[in-house]
Amino acid sequence: MVIFMKAQKQISQKAYMSEGFIGKYQKLVRDTVIPYQYAVLNDKADGAEKSHVVQNFINAGKALCGEDAGDGFYGMVFQDSDAGKWIEAAAYSLHNFPDPELEKNVDELIEIIAAAQDEDGYLNTYFTIKDKDKRWTNLLEAHELYCAGHMMEAACAYYEAVGKRRLLDVMLKNTEHIYKIFIEDGHGGFPGHPEVELALMKMYRLTGNEKCLALAKHFINTRGTDPDYYKRERAGRDWTVWGNNAEDNDYQQSGVPLRKAERATGHAVRAVYLYTGMADLAAETDDTELYTACKRLWESITKRQIYITGGIGSTVIGEAFSVDHDLPSDTAYAETCASIGLMFFASRMLENEVRGEYADVMEQAFYNTVLAGMQLDGKRFFYVNPLEVIPGISGVSPTHRHDLPQRPGWYACACCPPNVARLISSFGKYAYGESSDTAYCHLFAAGKVSFENGMSLVCETEYPYGFTVKYKVSGSGRLAVRIPHWSGKFSLDVNGNASSNLPENGYIYLSVSDGDEVILTLDDSPRFVYASGKIPRLSGMAAVCRGPLVYCFEGIDNGGDVLSLRLDTGKEIIAESSPDLLGGTVRLSVPALKISQTDSLYTSQKPFSTPCEAAAVPYYTWGNRGENQMRVWIPD
Amino acid sequence: MVIFMKAQKQISQKAYMSEGFIGKYQKLVRDTVIPYQYAVLNDKADGAEKSHVVQNFINAGKALCGEDAGDGFYGMVFQDSDAGKWIEAAAYSLHNFPDPELEKNVDELIEIIAAAQDEDGYLNTYFTIKDKDKRWTNLLEAHELYCAGHMMEAACAYYEAVGKRRLLDVMLKNTEHIYKIFIEDGHGGFPGHPEVELALMKMYRLTGNEKCLALAKHFINTRGTDPDYYKRERAGRDWTVWGNNAEDNDYQQSGVPLRKAERATGHAVRAVYLYTGMADLAAETDDTELYTACKRLWESITKRQIYITGGIGSTVIGEAFSVDHDLPSDTAYAETCASIGLMFFASRMLENEVRGEYADVMEQAFYNTVLAGMQLDGKRFFYVNPLEVIPGISGVSPTHRHDLPQRPGWYACACCPPNVARLISSFGKYAYGESSDTAYCHLFAAGKVSFENGMSLVCETEYPYGFTVKYKVSGSGRLAVRIPHWSGKFSLDVNGNASSNLPENGYIYLSVSDGDEVILTLDDSPRFVYASGKIPRLSGMAAVCRGPLVYCFEGIDNGGDVLSLRLDTGKEIIAESSPDLLGGTVRLSVPALKISQTDSLYTSQKPFSTPCEAAAVPYYTWGNRGENQMRVWIPD
Repeated sequence: MVIFMKAQKQISQKAYMSEGFIGKYQKLVRDTVIPYQYAVLNDKADGAEKSHVVQNFINAGKALCGEDAGDGFYGMVFQDSDAGKWIEAAAYSLHNFPDPELEKNVDELIEIIAAAQDEDGYLNTYFTIKDKDKRWTNLLEAHELYCAGHMMEAACAYYEAVGKRRLLDVMLKNTEHIYKIFIEDGHGGFPGHPEVELALMKMYRLTGNEKCLALAKHFINTRGTDPDYYKRERAGRDWTVWGNNAEDNDYQQSGVPLRKAERATGHAVRAVYLYTGMADLAAETDDTELYTACKRLWESITKRQIYITGGIGSTVIGEAFSVDHDLPSDTAYAETCASIGLMFFASRMLENEVRGEYADVMEQAFYNTVLAGMQLDGKRFFYVNPLEVIPGISGVSPTHRHDLPQRPGWYACACCPPNVARLISSFGKYAYGESSDTAYCHLFAAGKVSFENGMSLVCETEYPYGFTVKYKVSGSGRLAVRIPHWSGKFSLDVNGNASSNLPENGYIYLSVSDGDEVILTLDDSPRFVYASGKIPRLSGMAAVCRGPLVYCFEGIDNGGDVLSLRLDTGKEIIAESSPDLLGGTVRLSVPALKISQTDSLYTSQKPFSTPCEAAAVPYYTWGNRGENQMRVWIPD
Repeated sequence: MVIFMKAQKQISQKAYMSEGFIGKYQKLVRDTVIPYQYAVLNDKADGAEKSHVVQNFINAGKALCGEDAGDGFYGMVFQDSDAGKWIEAAAYSLHNFPDPELEKNVDELIEIIAAAQDEDGYLNTYFTIKDKDKRWTNLLEAHELYCAGHMMEAACAYYEAVGKRRLLDVMLKNTEHIYKIFIEDGHGGFPGHPEVELALMKMYRLTGNEKCLALAKHFINTRGTDPDYYKRERAGRDWTVWGNNAEDNDYQQSGVPLRKAERATGHAVRAVYLYTGMADLAAETDDTELYTACKRLWESITKRQIYITGGIGSTVIGEAFSVDHDLPSDTAYAETCASIGLMFFASRMLENEVRGEYADVMEQAFYNTVLAGMQLDGKRFFYVNPLEVIPGISGVSPTHRHDLPQRPGWYACACCPPNVARLISSFGKYAYGESSDTAYCHLFAAGKVSFENGMSLVCETEYPYGFTVKYKVSGSGRLAVRIPHWSGKFSLDVNGNASSNLPENGYIYLSVSDGDEVILTLDDSPRFVYASGKIPRLSGMAAVCRGPLVYCFEGIDNGGDVLSLRLDTGKEIIAESSPDLLGGTVRLSVPALKISQTDSLYTSQKPFSTPCEAAAVPYYTWGNRGENQMRVWIPD
């Protein structure tokens, strides 16, 4: 096996301007999500739960000046991170849509944050306001490094997209402080919620600061080497945040050294954030052993623990990975943030090695779970993404309380909405990549993209609804175009001539010149999909997909009742363009049977079945037309 | 609708001597379960968890005499009830199989218990040893009335089956004490875990003691009239047993007056014990309103919340009823005790009104969940009875930890094993009933039964494997024979002549005379069964039954893998007598397809299917041949 270390890297935020499907989503984030979230952070959004994020920073600043800290700290211990994620989303969006007022708001918030930084570089409002002496005594629960990580990501994004380095300087000073504590002073432990590892790698890549790299290495290399660390930490303090179990090393991925880890365990978001940092470090330092560990974890997730929608972390208990093949549709957890984190991980795996499977999973997670996390109007969000919802059971049964039939508004624990916003706003980084000699098209995203080697592309496509992707080339060089795993057939034409190049690890490589027109045509046929016989809950069932989109059946399109549908997989599915449905979509008409209903719970009378056409819509659009039944998997 | 109040009643334990299938089970209980449980109670069973039950009573007796209470109290707050349930099982068994040594052991234990009763009649080792001042201050959790109820049931059983009234006198004195507290002194509240209501009704029926009736009425009529009772109780004490939520009125069936209750909620065992007491009281006092409430609760359970196996209480969260139609196979709770309690409830509903559906459910619960609760050798027990077990997921996944692939031994919380023992030992009470003019055959149980009106029957049958039931009549009178709901066809012959009488509410009524031979022939065809389309988890699936037995598919009979089976419900199932299998059973050969396996988690390649014969065995026999896959419902 040939492994190409640091095979290619994400493009800069400045290199891509979007249009088409992604462009519309980026506009929605600009118009709706970012302003709403800004209002929330400032406690000015009607109907949202109190956030207090900005006020926490203001109060911390006062406390540092010896003034009265006003109404003190309010919110989750990781409340600061909401500011980081919002700034990151705003930063990316400011490149997409320059907006002096938004930029002014960001600058002002950054000043408030800077004022909340202690002289020694420490930055965390919870401890600064509540009790400075407790800093770093509860790595297990207190999210200090997690909050630092999100602010580092914000700092990188704002510098990269807008060019201002005020927050970057704050976070470099913060890094100095963390370096002193964990490296110079030898403080033990590693972050309870991983995040700072990948953030430190971003800081290192952007600034070349070696302390960032050293810290990321330190946290990754020490994790799991001392499985009793949290236990000792817990014994050494008389307080907890939530009473987390300090001995649950599976939950916090701290039971074995990461290089020896065999399978993804525990809290799914923590896991994929951690693995992202590992893959980053592996690519950046040519660390083959670490990359091999990443591959094992990748396979553990994507071969045995992933939903067809790209959701991961199937159990609500710990918001965690369960055992292999335990993938219930109705009690799924499948947190939006976990699929976003999986995209991060996939994108970093691509930096180690260009393999189509990484981009396939990135696409699967994005077009299904990540997009489903947000209502089509950008105003409400799912944290949890079930593949089946039955009103009367979902959200009500004791085992289904987390699986809501409708998206709620802003959460007290508001991790998902800003995560969706920053992901969508920086979509180009996931869609395109570059190495010194090659431009990579991982995902199909309309718009203009420029590469550091001088080549640029204009991409025209109706993807994910149209399956022709046209690239107009400026400059020249090598171009790599991904052929998605799901596309049973495809053609690639250069200036009207079919390319005879075969895919290598899921990509076709072409030499292109200025003025070339490259047209990729993918399979537009809807298809039935079957699950492995090892997934008990899916035996005898089939799902329906087209392109990267997983479809679902909603009651509103099917006489109110999808439980009585059976798919007739021997016949063909028809795609119907539906510009007025769900903001413009393609509806599928699926050959099916409708099963008669009886009054008894159990009967030996075989029910009748009547042929019918069942209607399916993309999974990401579900729950946008009121509460009703929804099902991805239907008995065959 | 004509309702016949107190339509008929259970026969006395002394009226039935068993043979056949039930007789073998009663011998197993005599030979294995009762001796083992006696050893457990005395902490002399190898490998069992410490019980301390007998020692608790000894220590309480010492405490009452002012002596040192030795090693004090050990175990669950309801540990005393294990003694009650064991005595009850032993009492019934002593009628079935007289045994002077066992009787001596019971007598000695009763003396130990009597010595633990306080002068005022109070009897509970937890409070007597630990803190007398806390008596009756924690009805929510402390199980004082629950333990009293089980000891009352034991007292009734021992008097009824063996004729000795020492324990009955102890419990009548205890009843006086409870009456003083709750009626004369006006102590508020009602039992956290219902049980004493049905026990008081047994005491009343056996002794005519009006205080028993008054107390049962009091607890049933006050429950739910003061939904804040437990909340106030909780506020009034500074200790808890487990920290139960005092405001969860659904859990403890205390949110609405029982006469107004619309649906079964909360902890399933508590619910059916309570409803049994309600139905008892309704029958005994001709209380139509109360019986109507019982019917609503009955329908709520049996029309919308019951498994095909007669299991109830589908969720592990609170060991409770979930919402209607939420009946997962793999994460089922379906506690053995809950199905036993459902049999109690059904039997008392029959005392209000003779309807076949009550006996149908009694039979469904007994032959499937109750029997499945015990290993075929009588040595290990299931508390939880899933309808699907997949090693690697069941017992391991965070949401499936309670669903074990194999029966464990004795539990720290040992409610189910003695419950199975007392139920099996008193099976005649459920199988036969009587009114002043009619002998009722509710269930088909070989052996001899005598009725108070002088009639007696000898019943010969191989049921539940043979479907001919022969009754030889001595004496004369009216005989009512149940025609089970599941029997698509049947014949009833009297002395060789077919009876033309039609079933009324599920029973055929005959006038019989001395020497008559009545032969009932039921449908012996195996059948496919389909679930209501309202049960999401069962859409597209079918199960297989024969007579009252639900069948299941185990890996050991099907090449290790039942997940790849699909039933071919268009063809016939073949029954094969298998005397050497699982202690003697009938195996079913079921037309099916075997689906090919792929390596990928999801694929658009439709799997191949190959016709095969799948083998099914009765559900009650599952898990007796090592850990393997098991499934009741298979895709059709």
